[in-house]
Amino acid sequence: MSSTNRLKIFNDPIYGFIGIPNELIYNLLEHPYFQRLRRISQMGLSYLVYPGAHHTRFHHALGSMHLMREAISQLRFKKIEITATEEQGLLAAILLHDIGHGPFSHALEGQLVQGVSHEALSLSFMKELNNEMGGRLDMAISIFQGTHPKKFLNQLVSSQLDMDRLDYLKRDSFFTGVTEGNISSQRLLSMLNVAQGELVVEEKGIYSVEKFLMARRFMYWQVYLHKTSLVAELLLTTVIKRAKVLLANGMDLEGSKTLLHFLSKKENSVFATADLNAFSSLDDYDIISALKAWQGTNDNVLSKLSQMLLNRDLPKIKLKNSPISDDKLGEVADKLKECFGLTESELSYFLYHGEVSNRAYNLKSQNINILRKNGKITDVAKASDHLNLKALAKRVTKYYLAYPTVEA
Amino acid sequence: MSSTNRLKIFNDPIYGFIGIPNELIYNLLEHPYFQRLRRISQMGLSYLVYPGAHHTRFHHALGSMHLMREAISQLRFKKIEITATEEQGLLAAILLHDIGHGPFSHALEGQLVQGVSHEALSLSFMKELNNEMGGRLDMAISIFQGTHPKKFLNQLVSSQLDMDRLDYLKRDSFFTGVTEGNISSQRLLSMLNVAQGELVVEEKGIYSVEKFLMARRFMYWQVYLHKTSLVAELLLTTVIKRAKVLLANGMDLEGSKTLLHFLSKKENSVFATADLNAFSSLDDYDIISALKAWQGTNDNVLSKLSQMLLNRDLPKIKLKNSPISDDKLGEVADKLKECFGLTESELSYFLYHGEVSNRAYNLKSQNINILRKNGKITDVAKASDHLNLKALAKRVTKYYLAYPTVEA
Amino acid sequence: MSSTNRLKIFNDPIYGFIGIPNELIYNLLEHPYFQRLRRISQMGLSYLVYPGAHHTRFHHALGSMHLMREAISQLRFKKIEITATEEQGLLAAILLHDIGHGPFSHALEGQLVQGVSHEALSLSFMKELNNEMGGRLDMAISIFQGTHPKKFLNQLVSSQLDMDRLDYLKRDSFFTGVTEGNISSQRLLSMLNVAQGELVVEEKGIYSVEKFLMARRFMYWQVYLHKTSLVAELLLTTVIKRAKVLLANGMDLEGSKTLLHFLSKKENSVFATADLNAFSSLDDYDIISALKAWQGTNDNVLSKLSQMLLNRDLPKIKLKNSPISDDKLGEVADKLKECFGLTESELSYFLYHGEVSNRAYNLKSQNINILRKNGKITDVAKASDHLNLKALAKRVTKYYLAYPTVEA
Amino acid sequence: MSSTNRLKIFNDPIYGFIGIPNELIYNLLEHPYFQRLRRISQMGLSYLVYPGAHHTRFHHALGSMHLMREAISQLRFKKIEITATEEQGLLAAILLHDIGHGPFSHALEGQLVQGVSHEALSLSFMKELNNEMGGRLDMAISIFQGTHPKKFLNQLVSSQLDMDRLDYLKRDSFFTGVTEGNISSQRLLSMLNVAQGELVVEEKGIYSVEKFLMARRFMYWQVYLHKTSLVAELLLTTVIKRAKVLLANGMDLEGSKTLLHFLSKKENSVFATADLNAFSSLDDYDIISALKAWQGTNDNVLSKLSQMLLNRDLPKIKLKNSPISDDKLGEVADKLKECFGLTESELSYFLYHGEVSNRAYNLKSQNINILRKNGKITDVAKASDHLNLKALAKRVTKYYLAYPTVEA
Repeated sequence: MSSTNRLKIFNDPIYGFIGIPNELIYNLLEHPYFQRLRRISQMGLSYLVYPGAHHTRFHHALGSMHLMREAISQLRFKKIEITATEEQGLLAAILLHDIGHGPFSHALEGQLVQGVSHEALSLSFMKELNNEMGGRLDMAISIFQGTHPKKFLNQLVSSQLDMDRLDYLKRDSFFTGVTEGNISSQRLLSMLNVAQGELVVEEKGIYSVEKFLMARRFMYWQVYLHKTSLVAELLLTTVIKRAKVLLANGMDLEGSKTLLHFLSKKENSVFATADLNAFSSLDDYDIISALKAWQGTNDNVLSKLSQMLLNRDLPKIKLKNSPISDDKLGEVADKLKECFGLTESELSYFLYHGEVSNRAYNLKSQNINILRKNGKITDVAKASDHLNLKALAKRVTKYYLAYPTVEA
Repeated sequence: MSSTNRLKIFNDPIYGFIGIPNELIYNLLEHPYFQRLRRISQMGLSYLVYPGAHHTRFHHALGSMHLMREAISQLRFKKIEITATEEQGLLAAILLHDIGHGPFSHALEGQLVQGVSHEALSLSFMKELNNEMGGRLDMAISIFQGTHPKKFLNQLVSSQLDMDRLDYLKRDSFFTGVTEGNISSQRLLSMLNVAQGELVVEEKGIYSVEKFLMARRFMYWQVYLHKTSLVAELLLTTVIKRAKVLLANGMDLEGSKTLLHFLSKKENSVFATADLNAFSSLDDYDIISALKAWQGTNDNVLSKLSQMLLNRDLPKIKLKNSPISDDKLGEVADKLKECFGLTESELSYFLYHGEVSNRAYNLKSQNINILRKNGKITDVAKASDHLNLKALAKRVTKYYLAYPTVEA
Repeated sequence: MSSTNRLKIFNDPIYGFIGIPNELIYNLLEHPYFQRLRRISQMGLSYLVYPGAHHTRFHHALGSMHLMREAISQLRFKKIEITATEEQGLLAAILLHDIGHGPFSHALEGQLVQGVSHEALSLSFMKELNNEMGGRLDMAISIFQGTHPKKFLNQLVSSQLDMDRLDYLKRDSFFTGVTEGNISSQRLLSMLNVAQGELVVEEKGIYSVEKFLMARRFMYWQVYLHKTSLVAELLLTTVIKRAKVLLANGMDLEGSKTLLHFLSKKENSVFATADLNAFSSLDDYDIISALKAWQGTNDNVLSKLSQMLLNRDLPKIKLKNSPISDDKLGEVADKLKECFGLTESELSYFLYHGEVSNRAYNLKSQNINILRKNGKITDVAKASDHLNLKALAKRVTKYYLAYPTVEA
Repeated sequence: MSSTNRLKIFNDPIYGFIGIPNELIYNLLEHPYFQRLRRISQMGLSYLVYPGAHHTRFHHALGSMHLMREAISQLRFKKIEITATEEQGLLAAILLHDIGHGPFSHALEGQLVQGVSHEALSLSFMKELNNEMGGRLDMAISIFQGTHPKKFLNQLVSSQLDMDRLDYLKRDSFFTGVTEGNISSQRLLSMLNVAQGELVVEEKGIYSVEKFLMARRFMYWQVYLHKTSLVAELLLTTVIKRAKVLLANGMDLEGSKTLLHFLSKKENSVFATADLNAFSSLDDYDIISALKAWQGTNDNVLSKLSQMLLNRDLPKIKLKNSPISDDKLGEVADKLKECFGLTESELSYFLYHGEVSNRAYNLKSQNINILRKNGKITDVAKASDHLNLKALAKRVTKYYLAYPTVEA
């Protein structure tokens, strides 16, 4: 069958149709590594709060690639040179930028695999694929790593205004129904340009950039760090922690071979090629299936935690602007021990406290640059006369306390 | 904690906000039976074609309930009496109407459980819940079964213009991005009425009903019976069939206890209470996890089929307007045997043929009634002067032939 | 100022951004002839029923041009040759296809100018512009007139699936809020092709074409021929008729010079160059301003009719499936004469009866062709196996009777 | 005909359906005073920039009333007492809040009528209508004027988070296609409450309020104060100014009686009842028709300005962050005098300079109050920890300079 006939079009509820531009991209899409992303929830456990949020990393990667094509077309219209090879590289790089995500995206990062970020895993997968494809991903890898001399290529893939962010804000807003996160990617793209080798936004786009940062901030506090999503993810990481302890203690647990492989790994062990291979078949289904099996296990803590998550019987959680006092923590701990008969060592599985923080704009890295009418380039936080964007650059921290409801 | 405080609101990308009207509904939502629906894909494997179509039975049930509230409000505005108890019953009935669906909704119906429809299972679950809730679902059950003397109550839950269909067309259209299926539920609801005890559509709504039937037909042929979804579901049922054969032959297979319970059941065995209990913990995750495990099994057929589905390496499929000839079948069979070294008995796992059919409107049951301006009630197929709706009532059949690509 | 800098982008709530591709198009847009379209309501008086429907011919022309660009890009992707000059011609032709519309688009067609269709006027304006622009519209005119040897070029501008229709259905649906008319122009465009020199739709697009025809039919009966829009337009034509009679009788009426020029023309007089010039400054504002002035005129009929329209105090109207009987007409006439003291000759200004008809698909001209998988071309009405599209080709006629409410 | 049957439903592309709740509202809608709003552009001349922005004050008033009904329903759900009479008053007050707007809404405010704001005119019209309707608008007037003891009733009609603003932001965003202005009115309404007699937003709604203020700010700078809209409105006020001068000098000008009445009024003359009556028939059509007639007038300035506006041949305009220097002004003035042969006194008709300013949030009046979880009420600018909302309260000023292009 000829390759052209195999090229296809995806229906996307956001952009309409997403076309697959060429055979390399088509082959990447077809690869089992990429198909795995169909089984990774884009927003972790947020669907427990927003029932529409079941979209996947697969879909997000497609969407980001679509925006990249638009960006390339806009920049070329403005006479910025992007060669055919660079275009290929940009598309492959953005398509694969998240291929290293594990189950539930960020939710379990650092739990199953220690000391290796999802970006590092993405790079490992890209190198694997590059071997298979005879070096056709060299350009993509150089763009992804930021070693390509044209800096703006990397900025399209990885900066505070990259195609990744443009897509995920729009997509997450769409599937959650939180319309406040809906950004005008079309307007933002139309204002991109390149000056002095840097990706810039033309001055008239400054309000759009501010609007984008506000939308991002809104999505963080209202959606990504929604207290119920947060407690669900705390519960999930706790289940995993418990399972690892039990396995380390020699207990036998049900679960897929792949999952048990990672749960049984020693702390600080090296991430080897065999691990990458195992990781390539790990997804949300391993986790949820294990939870289902663990509901009936002998360990009360593991079984209770698993049931809570599966039945969405979540701990209650409060977010505060100041740290939780030790007195308050002690008081809650006592109540939990009394009501549920918990031992001191079991307590940490049911009582969660800590902090979350976010800043809408990071002044220090991957800045958003504005191209002034006078030709100068300024950081957006300085270019905006009207709104103190520095305020958006301040880190905001909140403190949480969560534990199961104690019936009166 | 008081019950009122626990009532909540869901963000829905389609209707905006969906409120939970009262404590009974809230308690149904919280029940593990209902939470299971979060793990059942509304559209089976259609997400392999439409990457946005990961929405769940849970979400659809919520949406249907929302439309029911709107319908009740419209009918009361028109002075149709619906008591508070009937309202409660309607909401519970529509919320639970699909609670009997198994993994991947329709895709595996009849495969894991024989001789019991999903409607019958829904009824069984409703009775279970009714026991737990001290008879508070009596009204819902009587409406669902159609034994309530007010016939229109049942018609709101189960007819060719029920809240179930209004929601799923709109929702499936939304998440697939196939805008042609988007119906104006608001307009249709505004034209509902009750006459002579029957749910009717006011005459001025006739174009809207036609439009609704056309949208439904469009969705059937373009989405629900899309050839790629079809072949994916054929592949899925074939995997299940193979696993059952292997288990019957005494082979040991990985899989959740629940799934193995159903795969090991004898044909025509009675569906008992224990089965219902097991069914209540069966969902998409049991299936996909089993497929993942089976990829590495000793049986070549099972392992190949599992890999094909997981990696979306689907057989090629053609839809024809006339039956596939025996000659054509024989020819393909020979080629498959030769290329893949298949035995005669293995052939049926790789070569699929059969028919699919649909009619947009069924003249014989659960008709859509039009209330004429002269007060008479007419079937919509007769009320429409302009379009031969009888054409829509004709059953359309297509014939499919599918098998893996044979490389030249 | 350089021409490139003057090229601009329009925000369109439907397609997002609409770009102006080149200087010729830009110059056409800037021309007073084209700017006049900003003052012509796309849907006549429909805004009296659908308060959002104030969009203009200007906006529709822009939208049609945008779709034409998409169509060209789709066809070129399929290796259909469209030269740069042909592209230019297509864009200019679609942009100007409606430039001959008079006040309130179709509502007053034949009232102010007799014997000259809006298409003929469009052609006259195009020729005028061609003179001004030194022949740069030769190609556009040849495409518009259908004299260009490549038949499909004309079909993109003027057929039952042209860019005009795709845009107006989508646009009118959007601004009225009648979502049932929303068609997937993107899907339809993606299925266009050219075979044997004809514009065709690929076979897999057959459901989309049917859906499109149904949407069109829906919009006709629910919107374009909505009984209240209909009676408003009847009232408007009656005001104009009365004004012409009064002027013919030597009465002095207020009104713009341009409007009075046309109202005072003799029946069957030739449409001369001076008329075209006058027509180029005639728009909705001439009509509404005249009505406002005429509210206070001495002629009771004219003043009453003008007030009725301006204050939306419209006659009541009924649509029937069979002709209004003479008995019924006589009865109503008697009542009106009695209640309002109307003379026989005044009666026709207040009592309206007649018929309206529509067919969703015309079998005889500008057909929609389907390209079968076997390479043959078939009319869509024959290609559809499932739905009797011939039913859609049947002309449907309704009969109206309208007159002011007679208070009891 | 019974009143109930006359109640109707409007299709709205934004909210779906807008129902008319009762006969009083229906009668207000039908009144010629209100029907006039169909002929007043909501966004002045913005349609010259955003071709979809032809929506009217009529449509906006309907939309605001719809939101008011939702707000009432939300507040009652939270046990806030709103009596039937108060509800009626709220609906009438919001429906009529803008009935005093003149042609092109804000664009000509202060030009045709001096010293009377559109709010004062709205009140005058409301009193007129109240007389006609036998005092049925007493409550509406007391709410509108802020004399009703329940302060929150007035705040729903007139504050920085009133139904007027919620609707116009959403509506203007919709019709312009500037999606960044799209606010989630549903979410904001769901968070309204009343505490200590004041309209408040619950604390969890703080991000939504910030988002709303940002959207408002975006719409101001990107849309309402768009430089091209601004110059179009400057041109319009200049035409009117010129016409007044010519009339004062005794020149005869075409135009509707109503328009000439206002153009011929002495500066500082009292606004009398006769003026109100005349004003009630003044709308966009009087202005545009006059411009059309004035194109051919003897006065070159008036004729040139009129042509420029009608043909959208607008002066070029620049917006600066600092005031235009006298040197720059002098230089431009000299060039204009030379190129166009303008006299000193004519200059001001073609050379525009001045300033525009806006602040997204006003700290001093009609504040937005946040109801803290601890029961305290705080101004939103103080309640927000994360974003320096005080920055949004800063007045931003820009300076413009505009004049016709001087060809090289």
